[in-house]
Amino acid sequence: MPRIRVVLVEPKSEGNVGAVARAMRNFGARDLVLVKPCLLGDEAYKRAMHGVSVLQSATTVDSFDAAVKGADFLVGTSGIDTRSEKRFARISVTPRDLAERLAPMQGTVAVAFGREDFGLFEMELARCDLLVTIPAAADYPILNLSHAVTILLYELYAARVSTRARREASGLEKEKLHDAFAALLAATHYPEHKRARTKVMFRRLMGRAVPSTWEFHAFMGALQRATRRIERLERDR
Amino acid sequence: MPRIRVVLVEPKSEGNVGAVARAMRNFGARDLVLVKPCLLGDEAYKRAMHGVSVLQSATTVDSFDAAVKGADFLVGTSGIDTRSEKRFARISVTPRDLAERLAPMQGTVAVAFGREDFGLFEMELARCDLLVTIPAAADYPILNLSHAVTILLYELYAARVSTRARREASGLEKEKLHDAFAALLAATHYPEHKRARTKVMFRRLMGRAVPSTWEFHAFMGALQRATRRIERLERDR
Repeated sequence: MPRIRVVLVEPKSEGNVGAVARAMRNFGARDLVLVKPCLLGDEAYKRAMHGVSVLQSATTVDSFDAAVKGADFLVGTSGIDTRSEKRFARISVTPRDLAERLAPMQGTVAVAFGREDFGLFEMELARCDLLVTIPAAADYPILNLSHAVTILLYELYAARVSTRARREASGLEKEKLHDAFAALLAATHYPEHKRARTKVMFRRLMGRAVPSTWEFHAFMGALQRATRRIERLERDR
Repeated sequence: MPRIRVVLVEPKSEGNVGAVARAMRNFGARDLVLVKPCLLGDEAYKRAMHGVSVLQSATTVDSFDAAVKGADFLVGTSGIDTRSEKRFARISVTPRDLAERLAPMQGTVAVAFGREDFGLFEMELARCDLLVTIPAAADYPILNLSHAVTILLYELYAARVSTRARREASGLEKEKLHDAFAALLAATHYPEHKRARTKVMFRRLMGRAVPSTWEFHAFMGALQRATRRIERLERDR
């Protein structure tokens, strides 16, 4: 199993943060990163119970980028799972799917939870390799923040019994693959206005596929080959 | 699925009761029974959020017996899962096992959660048809009350809605994508002896990613564009 980093983006309730720390301790997760959190006072520490060590060692940062830095895989949580395929950026998997996909991974997986009221912003969601949505009642699908964290950590913990050994590509390798795809789009003069969402589409596909190191290299090789071929042909004409 | 009745035995924190009401609303459970609860004030109502209707319609009773009366099946929750068969009263199943066992049932299933500090007493556990324990870290397996309720309700809900609605690309569409990738390999003069396994690699990646129809079309478009670009440049030189 990978190391899990829980990222809370601009949490407004210190009680929620404390409850998250407790849930992390319950499910063996230690790395808590807070992006511009509310002040953490008595209520946070009271609710943390034996998870107070998680709270005390939490890192506070002032941007989403800083919070996910160094993570090999980035998971975003979203309460809205649109069925519109056009809004592909919102297509998500269930917590169980997530646990199955993460089980064979190595390295660090950051799981980001948004604001209690507004969730994660589009810009933050676009950064994620994979989105997860907790299935819930259509008339009130918005869970309490610590409940959402608890369900995700519970699923990851429950999946840990059946770990596999396949070596996953690292975050750095994956960025190279994304760069290679972007370079191919550029070489083919892919329409500028469609480029951003096509790159996000590709990131999500790869996020769900969870390629091994070998697959990444083979795939990147095929993409780079196409780009180089186009560049050479253009240079020579 | 049976109708789920959530029974909280002597809850001491009104915040927990409110959070439980919210989780119930999230997962479509309506029947809340409280055995000798603490007073429910502002904190309970604040934490209930849109689950306030569940809180308002909760029944308060003064004994465990009264709380489980009329239930067709009684589930007890326990944080201690002894492996000693001697203490048979404590042998329990996981929340997932529970969801699978309850799925075919009719009638009312009462799920009882114990006191925040002492859980359910032996006499209460002895009444239960089945015990469930949430798998958690050995050094701190005691979850917050509302977290425990949330996980149980989540599992019961997930068992109910395991079907997904997202439209996946058809077999025919997928073959077109594989053809597009093969055409790109050919256009780049990808080494013949590596071509077969690279195509298999791509098929496996896509098989795991399970792209939607929209994603397939967007991705195929990018690949075909690269192939056409190469072919045109080669023709023109």
